[in-house]
Amino acid sequence: MNRQTIVRELQNLLGPRGVLHEDADLALYEYDGSIEKGRPDFVVFPRTTDDVVAIAKLATREGIPFAPRGAGTGLSGGAVAEQGGIIVAMSRMNKILGIDAANLRAVVQPGVVNADISTAVAQYGLYYVPDPSSQKACTIGGNVAENSGGPHCLAYGVTTNHTLGLEVVLSDGTVIETDVNAPGYDLTGLLVGSEGTLGIVTKIVIRLVPLAEMVRTLLVSFSSVETASEAVSAIIASGTIPAAIEMMDNTSIIAVEAAKHCGYPTDAGAVLLIDVEGLRDGLDDSITRIADICKANGAFEVRIAQSAQERDKYWAGRKGAFGAMGRLAPSYYVQDGVIPRSQLPQVLHQVNEIGAKYHLRIANVFHAGDGNLHPLILFDDRDEQVTEQVIAAGNEIIQACIDAGGSITGEHGVGIEKRDLMARLFDAPTLAAMLRVKAAFNPDNLLNPCKAFPASKMCLEVSHKRRAALKQPVKLSRTILGAMPIP
Amino acid sequence: MNRQTIVRELQNLLGPRGVLHEDADLALYEYDGSIEKGRPDFVVFPRTTDDVVAIAKLATREGIPFAPRGAGTGLSGGAVAEQGGIIVAMSRMNKILGIDAANLRAVVQPGVVNADISTAVAQYGLYYVPDPSSQKACTIGGNVAENSGGPHCLAYGVTTNHTLGLEVVLSDGTVIETDVNAPGYDLTGLLVGSEGTLGIVTKIVIRLVPLAEMVRTLLVSFSSVETASEAVSAIIASGTIPAAIEMMDNTSIIAVEAAKHCGYPTDAGAVLLIDVEGLRDGLDDSITRIADICKANGAFEVRIAQSAQERDKYWAGRKGAFGAMGRLAPSYYVQDGVIPRSQLPQVLHQVNEIGAKYHLRIANVFHAGDGNLHPLILFDDRDEQVTEQVIAAGNEIIQACIDAGGSITGEHGVGIEKRDLMARLFDAPTLAAMLRVKAAFNPDNLLNPCKAFPASKMCLEVSHKRRAALKQPVKLSRTILGAMPIP
Repeated sequence: MNRQTIVRELQNLLGPRGVLHEDADLALYEYDGSIEKGRPDFVVFPRTTDDVVAIAKLATREGIPFAPRGAGTGLSGGAVAEQGGIIVAMSRMNKILGIDAANLRAVVQPGVVNADISTAVAQYGLYYVPDPSSQKACTIGGNVAENSGGPHCLAYGVTTNHTLGLEVVLSDGTVIETDVNAPGYDLTGLLVGSEGTLGIVTKIVIRLVPLAEMVRTLLVSFSSVETASEAVSAIIASGTIPAAIEMMDNTSIIAVEAAKHCGYPTDAGAVLLIDVEGLRDGLDDSITRIADICKANGAFEVRIAQSAQERDKYWAGRKGAFGAMGRLAPSYYVQDGVIPRSQLPQVLHQVNEIGAKYHLRIANVFHAGDGNLHPLILFDDRDEQVTEQVIAAGNEIIQACIDAGGSITGEHGVGIEKRDLMARLFDAPTLAAMLRVKAAFNPDNLLNPCKAFPASKMCLEVSHKRRAALKQPVKLSRTILGAMPIP
Repeated sequence: MNRQTIVRELQNLLGPRGVLHEDADLALYEYDGSIEKGRPDFVVFPRTTDDVVAIAKLATREGIPFAPRGAGTGLSGGAVAEQGGIIVAMSRMNKILGIDAANLRAVVQPGVVNADISTAVAQYGLYYVPDPSSQKACTIGGNVAENSGGPHCLAYGVTTNHTLGLEVVLSDGTVIETDVNAPGYDLTGLLVGSEGTLGIVTKIVIRLVPLAEMVRTLLVSFSSVETASEAVSAIIASGTIPAAIEMMDNTSIIAVEAAKHCGYPTDAGAVLLIDVEGLRDGLDDSITRIADICKANGAFEVRIAQSAQERDKYWAGRKGAFGAMGRLAPSYYVQDGVIPRSQLPQVLHQVNEIGAKYHLRIANVFHAGDGNLHPLILFDDRDEQVTEQVIAAGNEIIQACIDAGGSITGEHGVGIEKRDLMARLFDAPTLAAMLRVKAAFNPDNLLNPCKAFPASKMCLEVSHKRRAALKQPVKLSRTILGAMPIP
């Protein structure tokens, strides 16, 4: 079937405004929040599950690659049409279908913006916990695909811990319904984080959590990241799990203070930003306890925000940290390694050594409580030689995370960017088992091909040609600094 | 290959004491904690992962069904060799391989007894959360297979929330290693609760949790299960999640008091047993708050245990509740339905009506906070006519749970007992997707065949013949009342 016939069939299905196929329109869907690029052949906007079924059947019948896309804020190329084909944009499936406050759950379509859920359920004293950086833009469908995290996932878990059930369209158009509370295989858990390679999610049952009666914020200063790391371990070991523990090193503090004037101590080697929440009664005791643990582990200053304004000011620094790096360098390259928490001091030391070896400045802003590092390598991306050094340094950092028993990504996903690193994490039999699962759902490999697993030769050739055709150099840094404040 | 040759090959592999093949020995492995029966042809006792690999290869080569078995305390027939073949008893793989207290985790072999883990890590101020009834006997491998729960899973989640990674032998002898913190498909979550149908787990990385500084227990009395249910909903909605909320109705209270003399008020329509834990400071405030919510919802008495002895006394009643039913009837038939918490009053009312309709007495002892019902239908299993009524009533109860948007099992698993109910929970495409996943791991269907999914004709024929051969009637009640106190 030729291109024009496919366009007509899609238009008959979705209406003329439900299909993009002109080059100028398609160019807008070439990117996500990562450095990856790939122009789709068609972008379609389904309104119903039946629309998605029809699109899947058409794509499978014609052998065309297809992939779902949320808001395009992803950080690993998961929604980039590297192999061309159909991008299924979920933006019109953006309704909250039901709120069951008594049972702490809601049913939503995938195109609902993350932050809009908490707004909608606030009247019941509830909220949706996972709070990725991009929560004012990113959609819940994308969160499910990438198993997104956020600073406040420390105590309550990431997206998979808040997804109770799914309606999913498989590559052949079959619709399945999963329920985490029912027996049988946990297909809900299998699908969350599968990066759009197993099916297109069309409905999500999410868990809601009662809003804490009170939240207090601590800004704690240490002379070094090592001592701050020890304090993090000691807090977790004490049995009190704060709602968030974020760390910023001296380089980050200096950048943030220059940009945001949040009152961070620029002489500190590191600060911890800690949210403690719960019932009003007893919260002061928890705060005192955490403050004592910090002091016992070398904190030289503990500030407790005395007002909502002071709280917001401290958090504005953290949220604006990535954007603030523009004060120090034109560009940055960020990693998303995860390590066992006890390895924080050692791996952060290695990150510093790698920076010194390559003569690169590296800032660290990260989810310390989860051991989820975000080293930002600062550089000038106009200098090609430096750019090569940056890639090499980034590779060494991620290898250090792997060697420490950690992982290549905590919350950004594998997508295109990190797919070849998968073979460093898993042995061949384990990867083969995952690919057999993929084949069980997506036998023709048309659904988001070449993502999340080591790329076959075919994937790389198409990718190479496409990049050449696009005649644009691959840039390492994200172009809109600060658009996604907390990664 | 004939039977004798297989015995020799297994003996060469595992030593003469590592293989059972005489009828008298095999008869001991015919049961689990359910009503199901099936005699294996061989029982083998591997010591290492390599042993399990060799057993899997032999079984696959010879086309012999095989299945793992822990302590045999399962409640749905998951470890019963309905189709004969090899039972792989994991009791010799019973070592704690490592404890990483700093990162709150441990690596254990599947044959480690659940309670022994908490004993071993107590010196670090840690424990393993999921506490099934049978925790002094059941093994962690069985817990992983069945995704076991327990009264203290309310705040912290069931086995799947405490399993960080697995080493698994697939049906063809391939070994894979999964890691919940790594990207790619969540095979850990997929394997937990897969009831031994996807692989034999040979190593488990478990999550450990710091012991609470203080635990307090409340015994709260209500005039009816309806008012007690309203209190449960109100407590959860308040944002304070107690460590446990267990409910017992009047029938249960009377049985327990007759057997255990725990001081429960026999005039109460229902009691709630609530554990609240956390830091010493602030705990009194939480308790006061929960007591106030109970009173506002109709509680006529709130007792707060004033000593460890009083606490143990209240819990002894709950733990001995199933055993105590022997005071009221020779036998009982227990269901394991799950319902949305807000449906508790309505479904408990239906359970009562079903009891009245069939002239059967039904006691309710259950995990109220999770909406996990355990209606115990009391009867005399020597009366065949009554037994038929009991089965019919049990079916109506489980259908009421399904109709309320719930599930057929909360923690006991599907196994043989509930496999045909799966078709009432899932539509055909969703069951087909699960079976495709099964085929990806277990293509010849030799690994624990005919479990957890609606039985094929072949399964039923074998089962029927086997039962006839065993010449034993199927009993509905468990034979050792009280051996597994908290189901």
